[in-house]
Amino acid sequence: MNLLLLDPAEIGADGVVALSDARARHLIAVLGVAPGRRVRAGRLDGPLGEAEVLDAAADAGRVRLRVRFAGEPPPRPAVDLILALPRPKVLKRLWAPLAAAGVARVFIVNAAKVERMYFDSDALDPALVRVRLIEGLAQAGDTRVPEVAVRRRLKPFVEDELGPAPADGERRIAAHPRAGSRVADRVRAGERVVLAVGPEGGWTDYELDLLARHGFAPVSMGARVLRSDHAALALLALVRDAQGFAMDSGRRGGPE
Amino acid sequence: MNLLLLDPAEIGADGVVALSDARARHLIAVLGVAPGRRVRAGRLDGPLGEAEVLDAAADAGRVRLRVRFAGEPPPRPAVDLILALPRPKVLKRLWAPLAAAGVARVFIVNAAKVERMYFDSDALDPALVRVRLIEGLAQAGDTRVPEVAVRRRLKPFVEDELGPAPADGERRIAAHPRAGSRVADRVRAGERVVLAVGPEGGWTDYELDLLARHGFAPVSMGARVLRSDHAALALLALVRDAQGFAMDSGRRGGPE
Repeated sequence: MNLLLLDPAEIGADGVVALSDARARHLIAVLGVAPGRRVRAGRLDGPLGEAEVLDAAADAGRVRLRVRFAGEPPPRPAVDLILALPRPKVLKRLWAPLAAAGVARVFIVNAAKVERMYFDSDALDPALVRVRLIEGLAQAGDTRVPEVAVRRRLKPFVEDELGPAPADGERRIAAHPRAGSRVADRVRAGERVVLAVGPEGGWTDYELDLLARHGFAPVSMGARVLRSDHAALALLALVRDAQGFAMDSGRRGGPE
Repeated sequence: MNLLLLDPAEIGADGVVALSDARARHLIAVLGVAPGRRVRAGRLDGPLGEAEVLDAAADAGRVRLRVRFAGEPPPRPAVDLILALPRPKVLKRLWAPLAAAGVARVFIVNAAKVERMYFDSDALDPALVRVRLIEGLAQAGDTRVPEVAVRRRLKPFVEDELGPAPADGERRIAAHPRAGSRVADRVRAGERVVLAVGPEGGWTDYELDLLARHGFAPVSMGARVLRSDHAALALLALVRDAQGFAMDSGRRGGPE
């Protein structure tokens, strides 16, 4: 936990927060906080700032803090991910690292090689998803919770919701092991990106054609075929690098 | 499993292999193989090729195949990873994706922020490690098993084993969240890379200085702090991209 994330509803009018959950245990057991200690904090979907420990009851596992936030919320990452629904066990583990890697929206979609029954799994339970996403944000130091949407029919999602072509300054790319282009050939600094990653076994020709007709350029990471969750995370790293994330240097407010 | 990997000891003089383990179950249950069916195969640390199914006993979970390999083994990835020992649960899950991402050697090292007791965990058990590495190779389509070595003292490893400076055509980089350079600033196409990734909480100043004095340039992926396993995988993707892995196009032999 590199950032203490708080829900607006947890924060009293005087800026005081009382915690007795995993965050309190982390503050006590890992950081060993005492009154006066300041830690980096953020308000979910709001600005960054800091929290000063008022009192910490180690035995009871309770910590009270006063928070102060300033400025605008950090900008949302300029990447949306379209991901063919992975196996539930894989997806559950993917939410936190996806949020840590930085995505604005995640569309979980169907595809020919997706098992239908996966859509009924608790890996898509909104409460579980939110907890895991916030875990990833606390790791990465961000407050902006990615939006997650499930689209059980790929064709109307692509045709009607995404539409025929990318907006100005938007780039659409689809992962495909045999593509001849790399991410950096397709994405320029400052562009918004919509990245589509297929299921284990890949997109079918029909799906690739559907995506291509809606402006998705195929990209590859070379001859090695990664599992779709690792492919998504590796491609996000390449996308953010091509967008110039390294320019986004230094910490965004708040003490260490 | 995108590649059927076989140990040389499993292969009879006539090229016939009898399987009754997880690989046999995969061939039967997922691929539904029947006599005459050919699948991509590889000999561990050897060449790629194909295997023709001779008979498949679905009830007994047994498959016999005749394998044929040709040519040189695929080249080893031109990346070594130095990784501060992560938590056992994290490390166990990391072996397969590391092998899939492509590394020649992994040095698991100690660091100030590593828990000593992790060195006694079964996440470093050579038999477990090998199984997980082969799982990753079968995913990625490679035969070359990464070498894994444990170095419990960082200083003599860096000073005596790595030595004062990189060899010709070798680049040394160390992950550091506050570095001003990105991977692509430091790594050129065709260079060999030694990548050092610290523990949760990062390298200490002493460790960073030790690495810097031995030619490791700090690199960052921007303001977001990833967990060390995800950082390692993301950095490997950036390294292989900077090395020009996309040039390594097409499949390396063997049918689909």
